[in-house]
Amino acid sequence: MSENREVAVVGGGLTKFGVRPVTWAELAQEAGEVLFRSVPGLEASSVDSLFVGAAEPERFAFQSHVAPLVAEQMGLAPHRIVQRNELACASGQSAIRSAYAAIRAGLSDIAVAVGVEKMNLPSMAEANSAMACVLDRPWDAAHGLTAPPFFAMVAQRHMLEHGTTEEQFAAVSQKNHRFANANPVAQFYDKKFDREKLLRLPLVAPPLRLGDCSAMTDGAGAVVLAAADRVREFTDTPAWIRGTGQYSDFHNLANMESLTDWTGLTRASREAFRSAGIRPTDLDFAELHDCFTISELIEYEAIGLCPKGEGGKFAADGRSDLGGDLVVNPRGGLLGCGHPLGATGIAQAVEVSQQFAHTVDPSRQVPDPEWAMVHNLSGSANVHSVMIYQRGG
Amino acid sequence: MSENREVAVVGGGLTKFGVRPVTWAELAQEAGEVLFRSVPGLEASSVDSLFVGAAEPERFAFQSHVAPLVAEQMGLAPHRIVQRNELACASGQSAIRSAYAAIRAGLSDIAVAVGVEKMNLPSMAEANSAMACVLDRPWDAAHGLTAPPFFAMVAQRHMLEHGTTEEQFAAVSQKNHRFANANPVAQFYDKKFDREKLLRLPLVAPPLRLGDCSAMTDGAGAVVLAAADRVREFTDTPAWIRGTGQYSDFHNLANMESLTDWTGLTRASREAFRSAGIRPTDLDFAELHDCFTISELIEYEAIGLCPKGEGGKFAADGRSDLGGDLVVNPRGGLLGCGHPLGATGIAQAVEVSQQFAHTVDPSRQVPDPEWAMVHNLSGSANVHSVMIYQRGG
Repeated sequence: MSENREVAVVGGGLTKFGVRPVTWAELAQEAGEVLFRSVPGLEASSVDSLFVGAAEPERFAFQSHVAPLVAEQMGLAPHRIVQRNELACASGQSAIRSAYAAIRAGLSDIAVAVGVEKMNLPSMAEANSAMACVLDRPWDAAHGLTAPPFFAMVAQRHMLEHGTTEEQFAAVSQKNHRFANANPVAQFYDKKFDREKLLRLPLVAPPLRLGDCSAMTDGAGAVVLAAADRVREFTDTPAWIRGTGQYSDFHNLANMESLTDWTGLTRASREAFRSAGIRPTDLDFAELHDCFTISELIEYEAIGLCPKGEGGKFAADGRSDLGGDLVVNPRGGLLGCGHPLGATGIAQAVEVSQQFAHTVDPSRQVPDPEWAMVHNLSGSANVHSVMIYQRGG
Repeated sequence: MSENREVAVVGGGLTKFGVRPVTWAELAQEAGEVLFRSVPGLEASSVDSLFVGAAEPERFAFQSHVAPLVAEQMGLAPHRIVQRNELACASGQSAIRSAYAAIRAGLSDIAVAVGVEKMNLPSMAEANSAMACVLDRPWDAAHGLTAPPFFAMVAQRHMLEHGTTEEQFAAVSQKNHRFANANPVAQFYDKKFDREKLLRLPLVAPPLRLGDCSAMTDGAGAVVLAAADRVREFTDTPAWIRGTGQYSDFHNLANMESLTDWTGLTRASREAFRSAGIRPTDLDFAELHDCFTISELIEYEAIGLCPKGEGGKFAADGRSDLGGDLVVNPRGGLLGCGHPLGATGIAQAVEVSQQFAHTVDPSRQVPDPEWAMVHNLSGSANVHSVMIYQRGG
């Protein structure tokens, strides 16, 4: 459909990620403040659609119908088009994809995609219970399976099949935490972790230790997307959306063919590369969904950065670090930044925008990046969503 | 954007609406069965995107990440594109709008939009508590405001300002329940209500009686949308989407200018009519969101079917009935069919499709309809979503 309009992310901003003593609605308000401060050319009146990515406000904040609430809090009400997208851990990217589709479809010219999640509650038992909604409730979650034990099973299986080690997991965590130390909005901006310290942290679900797991995080952020003819009002370095791919596998764990073969990601990334007309080797950096260290290792394999089973070695050899084959998660990833579910996909897009504009800390700036890939998984890694961006200039 | 592809609803089907002794996932499965039975030309392999409208599975079924769950239950997994839309009572229409945008944008050729809601729980206190999520939690819902007391305030104000009467409310309820008596999937298919009976029903929130309120309903349904070049594989009477309009007002009640002036609907419908290139008088029927009788009366006014304040008279004079100015809710409306939040918007689109195909009961068939309008409100009537359909032939 070459007649469809081209669309770019033209800017955005994030709140501080962490344990924030504010309400869900206050986080949305803060996302509005930071958005208008970060994108000087933006007027509330020129935004004609708003897409809200939020995973579980119904359980974390006892609040549904959040699209108009966010519009109000951000100073965008009354408003023309509003929508809320829920795709668990990929809710933020889902909102961006809807904004992209709306502009491509000619239904919107300037769209805002916003992500909000407030996960730290006075009762963390209540918060953990909310997280148990994400897997299949009667078949899987009811037997105690939440994210950490699920990904621990994946890790155990990968160790068994391929000899992957805890030291290799720690290599991913160390890299991403190091990048987060140069990202002021990151939850663990001021926390240093060397490999020895990571390997002594408490076990959450064996073999995964505290440093192998992304945190429960409060945070929000927003990006602006614009149709081709409006892009130059906002930036000289637009992040053009050149390709998308998505793949949804079965939901019930009993229906999954393999814990460690993420063929959904292989298919989603192939589709994204094909629609963008590039190959993995053309990428300058990638934001991959490192909810757990094991996730990032398997993602290397599924995308084709290394052969199957060699993800651990790829990380330990520094091939996903600056100076390696492909820089993965220069933002600090979910491990270093925290993982406010709906805001994570937005934060990745902000990172792409800022890397293209060369406005990140020099210690994590990718040299002259042109192509970036963003990936989110959701649930039991049963849905994979991929987008490919190209820097305009 | 005349270069964008045209899109039509080409068929769909619904489960029985009512108090259903099945789980949330079983309703989704049933929606799949009824969809493939209702649209004979449809193959699972030709569906390339799935949009799920669901308002509150997180609270009604302790289940999030429902998009892949629905794909699995409907026999559509593994799958290319999945998304879940939440817009409270308008979640079903929101899913249809996303499917429409995806096809127009060239990202999908054949899309399924599905709505699922399971509202009747063993504990109805828990179900009512879930409904309290929809309004602004700390400012409005925390003070006891759920849908019935809110719309009761609207009704009281309309009575005060315009002399609207309980008998006029009952006229709406009687009309919609009569249509529902000819709609086998309706929750109140077998319940007869004359005006005298309606006026003797218990008060829920004065002046609204049981017959003035839509019910807590379990139900699901699905529609297929296709790009112009694929439409003829499915139907000879496509329902072309010719116009859309949406408007979102403030969320917090204290920010609303008026309880009875639904200017958001006026703006949304004007935009929909403008994009479709028609006027209200061109419509052959309308599916308006009658969550309460007072809602339908104010909707007549906001759309411009009658002057402000005369909605009650418009109903009582039969002008929204068959043979009147414009048939409103020949399906039976939310009052007669029940209101399974995410499924309602889907059910309205199925009605448009079936009216255009002349397959509904003759007693509620609109004579040779060409143009139809569908409307949903959500929350405290602070968001209005409108679509305009034209029959192809």
